[in-house]
Amino acid sequence: MTIEKIVLESFSKQGFMKHLGAKIISIDEGLVKVSCIKSDNLTQQNGFFHAGVITTIADAACGYAALTTMPIGSDVLSIEFKTNLMKPAISENLIAIGKVIKSGRTLVFCEAKIMDEKEETIFATFQGTMICKQPT
Amino acid sequence: MTIEKIVLESFSKQGFMKHLGAKIISIDEGLVKVSCIKSDNLTQQNGFFHAGVITTIADAACGYAALTTMPIGSDVLSIEFKTNLMKPAISENLIAIGKVIKSGRTLVFCEAKIMDEKEETIFATFQGTMICKQPT
Amino acid sequence: MTIEKIVLESFSKQGFMKHLGAKIISIDEGLVKVSCIKSDNLTQQNGFFHAGVITTIADAACGYAALTTMPIGSDVLSIEFKTNLMKPAISENLIAIGKVIKSGRTLVFCEAKIMDEKEETIFATFQGTMICKQPT
Amino acid sequence: MTIEKIVLESFSKQGFMKHLGAKIISIDEGLVKVSCIKSDNLTQQNGFFHAGVITTIADAACGYAALTTMPIGSDVLSIEFKTNLMKPAISENLIAIGKVIKSGRTLVFCEAKIMDEKEETIFATFQGTMICKQPT
Repeated sequence: MTIEKIVLESFSKQGFMKHLGAKIISIDEGLVKVSCIKSDNLTQQNGFFHAGVITTIADAACGYAALTTMPIGSDVLSIEFKTNLMKPAISENLIAIGKVIKSGRTLVFCEAKIMDEKEETIFATFQGTMICKQPT
Repeated sequence: MTIEKIVLESFSKQGFMKHLGAKIISIDEGLVKVSCIKSDNLTQQNGFFHAGVITTIADAACGYAALTTMPIGSDVLSIEFKTNLMKPAISENLIAIGKVIKSGRTLVFCEAKIMDEKEETIFATFQGTMICKQPT
Repeated sequence: MTIEKIVLESFSKQGFMKHLGAKIISIDEGLVKVSCIKSDNLTQQNGFFHAGVITTIADAACGYAALTTMPIGSDVLSIEFKTNLMKPAISENLIAIGKVIKSGRTLVFCEAKIMDEKEETIFATFQGTMICKQPT
Repeated sequence: MTIEKIVLESFSKQGFMKHLGAKIISIDEGLVKVSCIKSDNLTQQNGFFHAGVITTIADAACGYAALTTMPIGSDVLSIEFKTNLMKPAISENLIAIGKVIKSGRTLVFCEAKIMDEKEETIFATFQGTMICKQPT
């Protein structure tokens, strides 16, 4: 199975991604993009994308970016992440670009930018550590 | 309007809370609890609560805990938060307990624990900084 | 060798602790306190304890708290931490109280409070993940 | 007074920078570099640069990068930061490159990379939020 298929299969098992309407829009080694279309289901009290949505798609993008660097058959779990919210996320389509910064045997450190659909404005940044659950 | 009403009104405007099925279960000064019932819509790939759900309800609990310490008419926004995920969140009902640690004029620092419905097991901790948008 | 001796021996190898004048003031399982006396060598531009000093002694307190929960012969390394600075650290003696929140086989998650010498005022909170390098 | 002079003057008041032997090596708008030469005073238990040193010079680089974007006469304070440590910091001269990502009226969000003297290897990344204390 190609790494693309592995990522898509795991992603499809995340009920929460479906519930958000989130989609993987690209998969490269160490670099995954996830997007999410604007909807009244995803807002905070002012009608912007909720910080929870921003963080969720960033976590998914980073988790799967990490998975592309792990041995086939591994599973990936987040152990910690931080989000810095810089401006209201007003966009028709939110994009999280997750990138592996350092891939170790056990831990993979990733960063994401969360941007508008043109990838011009950064709404938030995200940094997280992912752990590799090796195939048994 | 009482602070309870203010919190509930703002919470009801968050489309994302409705979409998660999240509810505020208690409101005290500097302490708010938010819960979320298990559903296939809220899972990651192993069927546990998604880290994004954990973070979202922790952010809501902390944001509204912060709001209870702000002048009437203020709005609250998250500027940054971090989540540490300690164990798989397996529970019928996830509870986030958000607490104000330091309330300043502009910034309010909060922490949350995310636990099972009996408040016995901590799945994750969350720390965040909220900003007060004062009434104009 | 008792865990106390192990902690003190490792601490004594940290040149930076000596340079700060930091001392371990108590060692219990999962709970270590480190203190640091006020000095002009440890200030930021307004004469308060530097955020770097606050973070350093919190990291040491948490790292050694983590070490007390690891197998004898392990070494401990920080993989990530966050500090939230709540008020100017004005104190004759700064105390970091590091506590293990969750001890796993590989990762140990800890939190610290950084306080004045009477342990009355919290200046900052710290959360960090430590990794256990097992004896070879 | 030029922004360079303002930064250097504030830096010179930080007793802790002197104690580390840290120096500002460049100042541009929104971009400041701080370096620190290897010494037995700055080590953790294995002889690497201590995580506290890494964080301290990153905090200084980001704080002063932030200050270059603030109104003349402002003071800068860190409100929160996170460090992710990716590999042992083994270098003759540690460099922290602090960069402003988003400069607001009150808050400035910055990131730093902490690298070897050739700026080839990243040892750690740092993200922090700085607050502007406006001239009174």
